[in-house]
Amino acid sequence: MDKPYVIGIDLGGTTTKFGIVDRNANIKFGEPFDTLTYANAEDYINDLGKAVNNLIEKNNLKDQINGIGIGVPNGNRNDGTVKDAANIPWTKGVLVPVTALLGELTGLPCKLDNDANVALMGEMTYGAAKDLNNFIMLMLGTGLGGGIFSNGQLVAGHNGFAGELGHIRVVRENGRRCGCGRYGCLETYASATGVAFTARELLLLQPERDSLLRKIVDSPITSFNVYEAACEGDELAIEVFNFTGRILGEAICDFIAFSDPETVILSGGLAAAKDFLQKPLEKAIDDNVCFVYKGKTKIQFSQLKGEKAAILGASALAWD
Amino acid sequence: MDKPYVIGIDLGGTTTKFGIVDRNANIKFGEPFDTLTYANAEDYINDLGKAVNNLIEKNNLKDQINGIGIGVPNGNRNDGTVKDAANIPWTKGVLVPVTALLGELTGLPCKLDNDANVALMGEMTYGAAKDLNNFIMLMLGTGLGGGIFSNGQLVAGHNGFAGELGHIRVVRENGRRCGCGRYGCLETYASATGVAFTARELLLLQPERDSLLRKIVDSPITSFNVYEAACEGDELAIEVFNFTGRILGEAICDFIAFSDPETVILSGGLAAAKDFLQKPLEKAIDDNVCFVYKGKTKIQFSQLKGEKAAILGASALAWD
Repeated sequence: MDKPYVIGIDLGGTTTKFGIVDRNANIKFGEPFDTLTYANAEDYINDLGKAVNNLIEKNNLKDQINGIGIGVPNGNRNDGTVKDAANIPWTKGVLVPVTALLGELTGLPCKLDNDANVALMGEMTYGAAKDLNNFIMLMLGTGLGGGIFSNGQLVAGHNGFAGELGHIRVVRENGRRCGCGRYGCLETYASATGVAFTARELLLLQPERDSLLRKIVDSPITSFNVYEAACEGDELAIEVFNFTGRILGEAICDFIAFSDPETVILSGGLAAAKDFLQKPLEKAIDDNVCFVYKGKTKIQFSQLKGEKAAILGASALAWD
Repeated sequence: MDKPYVIGIDLGGTTTKFGIVDRNANIKFGEPFDTLTYANAEDYINDLGKAVNNLIEKNNLKDQINGIGIGVPNGNRNDGTVKDAANIPWTKGVLVPVTALLGELTGLPCKLDNDANVALMGEMTYGAAKDLNNFIMLMLGTGLGGGIFSNGQLVAGHNGFAGELGHIRVVRENGRRCGCGRYGCLETYASATGVAFTARELLLLQPERDSLLRKIVDSPITSFNVYEAACEGDELAIEVFNFTGRILGEAICDFIAFSDPETVILSGGLAAAKDFLQKPLEKAIDDNVCFVYKGKTKIQFSQLKGEKAAILGASALAWD
């Protein structure tokens, strides 16, 4: 805590992004590099160590760095290792002791956690969750991840699996098939995947209805396509977000009854569609929340955006 | 903590029950007396003080009592008062400083909490939740109350209203009208009221079907009637519990995804129907829980029964 900088590393499936971060979330960026081109973990970590050392040297910040935080899919916070991270071939079947190796190369204390927890830490250190003790964070990406805080502590659960809010079931009959093998889970509706699915379903169900999305024929419609169409005023695309906001808002009413959070924070790629999601979401909450909570829960869209968010989140691990 | 006994008082709507309790949940009962016959709070508290002092004297336990715990509907733990407790006329519109008055009469430190929290404390001190850090308690009475523990702490929420698990919505279309003004809340199905409703509905929907419950004509069917009929092998009554267990089990799957408890504890009047509820409940969980939790969550029916439970729960407040 006593030194003024930390380093955040977003070890992503495609690209590694990193930077030196101060207490106010200012970033001195390093040069991003490919994660995928490496044949084995050692070569990758060696280059990462060099890149980090170079960045520190370039900025004349030797002895000013408190530590390094790393966010990586499937990272194990307990021992600082990664194994079988989705999309990172050199972790396939290999237990990579990332923090041990990188610590040796840089001489700095290293911590690591999975990308969802890291996003949560970022919001708590620099973002919307700063100074909150009771809140829920929903990460709306390909799936829907959750993090619940109560009395200032993460609700981790007996097996460490609490907060799987994407797998709360919101449609109990004829629900969409979920990656978990069940039907009707929230993340099949309120996620980037869910938004794309809803759009494709609406186009199918209403073949006579006009939409900009009908022009997309070479590849499957994505949530970003829907967002772009909504930005251009496409009514069908806007209806997709109305539907998504409503189903998410109704689910949030149940989350509120569970842990009575001060704030529900929405982050992740889909949170960028705030302009289209916020109104239907807040209306659904207002229409459906149990009266004891009426008007008491704030809904906030993440203040940390894009690649910055991932680096900041990782860096948050390194402050203490 | 240093004295071997505490006193527990169940200030119930109809009857006041109390006793001296040791660390092993043994109770020396006092003589129960009517709560309702009193015209004002002072007379009631005076008689309660006398009754408590007499019980201590009779058992020769002066200087052996650590304190007094009181459970009462609508009790305010923060200042030890009661106001507008359901069914207790002398609290109607009057703020009664119960712990202050009783403390003066007995010379003992007094604590008070509402009946739901007190039941939770009882389970944690003497019952199924002893030594658990991550658990959920469901109190199946007239309604359905919940208490969630994470990392050994109560999830209280920002406004103190966390754990309203009776108001998680399990039927989103054509659900039953709930006391909270909404439709489809869990407590309209999985509670004593819900069981009675399900029975009456089944009798209506299947007019040709035989059941012992058809003999009850002078008064509305209660959950206890359904329980008695099930004990005699009545198939319709058993089906009522199968339905109740299934809908509760499906809801518990969502609770598990939320806080990943080690154990879900069922208490309250309806938990006495364990023989009929347990199997359909556990089957519903096994059929519906997300795979990451499969086989990991224990379901336990409360070990603290009937009037003992209420006294023990209240007494649990007085140990520290």
